[in-house]
Amino acid sequence: MSKILVLGAGLSSSDLIKYLLDHSKVLGWTIKVGDISLETAREKVNNHPNAEAIKFDINNSAQLQEEVSWANAVISLLPAFMHPIVAQECVKQGKHMLTASYVSDTMKSLHEEAVQKGISLMNELGVDPGIDHMSAMRVIDEIRSKGGKLLGFISNTGGLVAPESDNNPWNYKFTWNPRNVVLAGQGVAQYLEEGQYKYIPYHRLFTNVREYDILDLGKFEMYPNRDSLKYREIYGIQDIKTIIRGTLRRAGYSKAWNVFVQLGMTDDSYKMQNSEKLTKREFLNSFLPYHPTENVEEKLRRIVPEANDEVVFNKIKWLGLFENEPIGLPNASPAQLLQHILESKMALDPNDKDMIVMQHIFDYELNGTKRRRTSTMVITGKDTVHTAMSITVGTPLAIATKLLLTGQITDRGVVVPTKPHIYTPILQELESFGVKFIEDDFELS
Amino acid sequence: MSKILVLGAGLSSSDLIKYLLDHSKVLGWTIKVGDISLETAREKVNNHPNAEAIKFDINNSAQLQEEVSWANAVISLLPAFMHPIVAQECVKQGKHMLTASYVSDTMKSLHEEAVQKGISLMNELGVDPGIDHMSAMRVIDEIRSKGGKLLGFISNTGGLVAPESDNNPWNYKFTWNPRNVVLAGQGVAQYLEEGQYKYIPYHRLFTNVREYDILDLGKFEMYPNRDSLKYREIYGIQDIKTIIRGTLRRAGYSKAWNVFVQLGMTDDSYKMQNSEKLTKREFLNSFLPYHPTENVEEKLRRIVPEANDEVVFNKIKWLGLFENEPIGLPNASPAQLLQHILESKMALDPNDKDMIVMQHIFDYELNGTKRRRTSTMVITGKDTVHTAMSITVGTPLAIATKLLLTGQITDRGVVVPTKPHIYTPILQELESFGVKFIEDDFELS
Repeated sequence: MSKILVLGAGLSSSDLIKYLLDHSKVLGWTIKVGDISLETAREKVNNHPNAEAIKFDINNSAQLQEEVSWANAVISLLPAFMHPIVAQECVKQGKHMLTASYVSDTMKSLHEEAVQKGISLMNELGVDPGIDHMSAMRVIDEIRSKGGKLLGFISNTGGLVAPESDNNPWNYKFTWNPRNVVLAGQGVAQYLEEGQYKYIPYHRLFTNVREYDILDLGKFEMYPNRDSLKYREIYGIQDIKTIIRGTLRRAGYSKAWNVFVQLGMTDDSYKMQNSEKLTKREFLNSFLPYHPTENVEEKLRRIVPEANDEVVFNKIKWLGLFENEPIGLPNASPAQLLQHILESKMALDPNDKDMIVMQHIFDYELNGTKRRRTSTMVITGKDTVHTAMSITVGTPLAIATKLLLTGQITDRGVVVPTKPHIYTPILQELESFGVKFIEDDFELS
Repeated sequence: MSKILVLGAGLSSSDLIKYLLDHSKVLGWTIKVGDISLETAREKVNNHPNAEAIKFDINNSAQLQEEVSWANAVISLLPAFMHPIVAQECVKQGKHMLTASYVSDTMKSLHEEAVQKGISLMNELGVDPGIDHMSAMRVIDEIRSKGGKLLGFISNTGGLVAPESDNNPWNYKFTWNPRNVVLAGQGVAQYLEEGQYKYIPYHRLFTNVREYDILDLGKFEMYPNRDSLKYREIYGIQDIKTIIRGTLRRAGYSKAWNVFVQLGMTDDSYKMQNSEKLTKREFLNSFLPYHPTENVEEKLRRIVPEANDEVVFNKIKWLGLFENEPIGLPNASPAQLLQHILESKMALDPNDKDMIVMQHIFDYELNGTKRRRTSTMVITGKDTVHTAMSITVGTPLAIATKLLLTGQITDRGVVVPTKPHIYTPILQELESFGVKFIEDDFELS
């Protein structure tokens, strides 16, 4: 009889909670789902006999203490910055904890104590991070076990709109946190290519894309993520010549997005004067130099050369940026105003489906020949509840919880799923949920 | 009999200390000059009978307490972040303090206590900030007193190399802190032009320059500083339509500097891998995408269009950036490596002279006509000790000290020189040091 506490019942929790409820009878689980909104928690629990919905407030430390005390394992789907609060309580009380988020420094610092208490702090069990690690390590370990030598690894993931719901000129809708999408890529992209360290600043990131044809889905493009270099250590591939992790978008997205970057519209570091009064057109004009006679359209074409491409220009126009329509956001940064404009045009419609595409490209040498392995996952959401994001974030997390509570995972301390005894059963079971990788392997000419 | 403590005897202190020594006999001053290097302090004091050189360490709070206790007024030329430590001690002990730096938040917070103790905390008494405020306010107050209405104010300042020492393709040498020059402009430039708020991101700053012919010195260009908007309040010109403060460079500088900005070479936010092993050419190549056959020169021309201009290309080449010469700086950021490369080529030679150029452009309406007033200062250094910077930073600070100690300035608390009774005597006396403004005033067609 195990007791599982789920904290956070937002968008990405649907398939996690469904899995737990579906397995609760056979495995003798009792589940408690806590959310700041009791209503949200109740929707997910849906009166299931083995589960209870509660209002949960992370700032209520007495409640945190009490609920952790009740549980055998705690799954946190709260915003990542709240994980350490939960983790500290779990370690204190000797309870397992699982998340779909990156291991933070605070999390890392709890490793020794967690080992001593005999508990697991399992992290990076979602899709990215999560399935990316597991699926990459499966191939890396396989190539290594055959005596192959890995030369290059490019790994791309994108949260996108499914083809059947893809009906706007950007071929993009918000299926993840819009704020993160607007701020994506800020800083410098660091990667290694053919033995050369490369540093691409944010303002050149979206002009530095690579194109990919993926399965029968057509053309995508990728821009490198901030830090690809650290994956050498995480994956144990320190002597690799090329390592790049990237974000996938539909072809053409980056050239238009680059207009925002060039203008400075994604800057979140300052508030604009009188932002509550700005119209969309004035917002755009704020980033264009003053000119006594040129209009906004003319200035944009002159200042940002990409805007002379009519396809790009029409993407900007479709957002209404040339219209004198009020935005109405007080004390806002450029990024906040841009997000507000985008959200009104790029939100998922009630019947829209999302899609997650992940593709790894491994170049390796085996028996004197150079080969390439591609490993590709495409997941389409079932509906707006069981989205591709919810399926791919929640299901591996749920499977890991099962493996932990049934004693099949005995690792203690801070754990990420890069070892075969963890990723093999998770990837295997994921296939029954439609989460599988299509592989191709061929000799490079 | 007044006692003056000068903290910091670096490059910009020469003319300040000379002024104090020259006036010490007549005004009955005793001067103590403290520097972390006793040798540096001694050089400046030069065995003057009314002065003493001491080794001074800002981290030695007992010494700070003792020396402040000795003095009637303390002048801090220490790095700006150290001013609050000195200011707190001065307020505690009821001693005047003067600096050439911007009023920090800590400084501001000491205002009430300073007023109660009957002391002045005088700031922004150098050239920029300092002479810029005084000279601008003199014109603004004059226009206002005539019944004119100020419409626009553009104010540009540059620390440059004097024409007779201007012998490199950049027409630039380091006459101020090189680190500040490399990082200059990072963030967003905010200004107001013809009633429109404008926000220019760093990566477009150096393509957004304005050209000026200044006196008989030829062509200059200006890029806007980070925050021009705050000067509306400082100068009491809240209803102005245009306000821009900018940095002056010789024409052509920005187009070449923009190559560094576009590449990401001025980024100080991360350390480069194996930076100690990088040659200049490898450093450059780190910011260019990998290509199997193109060389660094070809990639640069493709990635940064400005580099196709041979004048720009040759400026980059002159710095040796295409050469495989080691840089030799461990654990360094791009900005640190760039600074290192630039310093080896752009330092002042022993016989070089520096130059400071400041130009205000006021547009105003008087009796129904629109007029423009320009007010221009050009100061050339005498030698490497009495530089233009030392003259313009140190002399107004010294004059203010005299006015304060002789009771001609009676303002208490935090003071900046924007009022006529402060700026008038300082600007008047500055003229006898060659620091004067050439004015022109004409009707706008």
